[in-house]
Amino acid sequence: MSSGVTVAVVGATGAVGETTLKLLEQRRFPVKSLHAYASERSVGKTVTFSGESMPVEKLGPSSFKGIEMAFFSAGAAQAKEFAPIAAAAGAAVIDKSSAFRMDPKVPLVVPEINAHALRGHEGIISCPNCTTIITVMPLKPLHEAGRLRRVVATSYQAVSGAGVKRIEELRVQTQAWARGEKIEPKYFVDQIAFNLIPHTDPFGPDGYTGEEKKLINEVRKILELPNLAISPTTVRVPVFTAHSIAINAETELPISPAREVFRQFAGLQVWDTPEQNRYPCRSQSKARTTASWAASARICRIPVR
Amino acid sequence: MSSGVTVAVVGATGAVGETTLKLLEQRRFPVKSLHAYASERSVGKTVTFSGESMPVEKLGPSSFKGIEMAFFSAGAAQAKEFAPIAAAAGAAVIDKSSAFRMDPKVPLVVPEINAHALRGHEGIISCPNCTTIITVMPLKPLHEAGRLRRVVATSYQAVSGAGVKRIEELRVQTQAWARGEKIEPKYFVDQIAFNLIPHTDPFGPDGYTGEEKKLINEVRKILELPNLAISPTTVRVPVFTAHSIAINAETELPISPAREVFRQFAGLQVWDTPEQNRYPCRSQSKARTTASWAASARICRIPVR
Repeated sequence: MSSGVTVAVVGATGAVGETTLKLLEQRRFPVKSLHAYASERSVGKTVTFSGESMPVEKLGPSSFKGIEMAFFSAGAAQAKEFAPIAAAAGAAVIDKSSAFRMDPKVPLVVPEINAHALRGHEGIISCPNCTTIITVMPLKPLHEAGRLRRVVATSYQAVSGAGVKRIEELRVQTQAWARGEKIEPKYFVDQIAFNLIPHTDPFGPDGYTGEEKKLINEVRKILELPNLAISPTTVRVPVFTAHSIAINAETELPISPAREVFRQFAGLQVWDTPEQNRYPCRSQSKARTTASWAASARICRIPVR
Repeated sequence: MSSGVTVAVVGATGAVGETTLKLLEQRRFPVKSLHAYASERSVGKTVTFSGESMPVEKLGPSSFKGIEMAFFSAGAAQAKEFAPIAAAAGAAVIDKSSAFRMDPKVPLVVPEINAHALRGHEGIISCPNCTTIITVMPLKPLHEAGRLRRVVATSYQAVSGAGVKRIEELRVQTQAWARGEKIEPKYFVDQIAFNLIPHTDPFGPDGYTGEEKKLINEVRKILELPNLAISPTTVRVPVFTAHSIAINAETELPISPAREVFRQFAGLQVWDTPEQNRYPCRSQSKARTTASWAASARICRIPVR
């Protein structure tokens, strides 16, 4: 145990934090020692890592002494306060919040696409929005093959992307329905059970939600196409985990067939044998839905006809 | 009761047939007498019309004597067999199935858009697919205002559009989930509870489902734009009633703002005050979800940016 990395997971009791711990374990990340941090109200709870129960520690200014790598999934406000402290203490911060995504000094990284952006980072590395990730993954090889001209992206976002409280809300509302009881929205702005909510984030004055703006800005930054024409519509659907997105993309050059371009791109799997009922669908992709951002993408037809 | 219309409802025990009876009643359609027809296995059942219980009669070649108007919602095979018989007997047939939609001699009508197509009909009038209707309704005024160039349409289709058995299947699967039991798909090709199924119809060799082909062909026929570029993606979602569709449309001429164009079109309602949480959403539109095709449309941003 003398080799390996000293790791902090910040927001360890949240949906993303729990999944981070699971993935570090599953992927045998060389952890030397691990600290699980959360806000004061989670202190007293425990998390499990490598079969051991660990106390959750209160996040504070001195939490990062000796930490080499810090995974932040504590929300934007916490990230803004503590990520710079962690970075100053010498940690490489990988932040899942929106706090630093559009900061020009912070790389916004999807490893399969722009790992090169990590070079020369100043201590904070940002992860994109969950829907951005499943959108850029197929767009990158399309762009390389034929230069993207414009993109229409329409999402079907699971409640997992909205955090543990809202995952629980879908469960609670559906259980209430099953007992014949009235459904009362609590965290979502409207009923989510058996309903769609286009209000994934507040709507801005231009009619786009925050989520849609994130998609526009983050896709442009990751693909290094600051003027890419992209029209997103993001919708929350009553699904527990795994986001889906329907993409219509137009390229400068013809690409045929697009599925070959996808097949050759590391990190994408093409499931396209509908005659065997095999295409991305929840019950076929359980293994791939352990994280809200490790979601499945369904790429739809490229040409407008 | 000496004036009024002699009406037949064919497929009276199905989801659409039941709704047809309800609408005839709600809208005080001048019914002189009414016959409720269904297949042999529904004989013995009753339906309710204007507070009275009526026996379901077996559909047969002599069912249409004296019938002036016949509403068919019995599926394509039944329609192909019996609609010509009804028409020959003098009835005006309004068929909800796909049987005659693309027949050049049969008008395919959305009353707000192309009532003129009814002129000179030969006894059979076809209703479009549910998703087609909510797609053409906003496209028509956009086309009139600025000439459509291309359309990307992405659907979120409720189980109601797939008939009573599948409505029941969402209910049964969700109840099984609530009891902690295993979910077994029966009519849908996959689990529908907490899942999305892009397989709304069989996939064809070109990768489009039957539902998507219907959308392409029917939109072109209704709008009388045989070469309209349209790229659809249709997805079944775990919602009981009310289809939604996200549309990205490009026009030859600039239209600004598009919502004014929609406001002035009879049959469309613009719900677009998100600051009051008012936009099309299930729990706000109960009154509008009585029929699977009387669904809500959400028109999304027009420009690709």
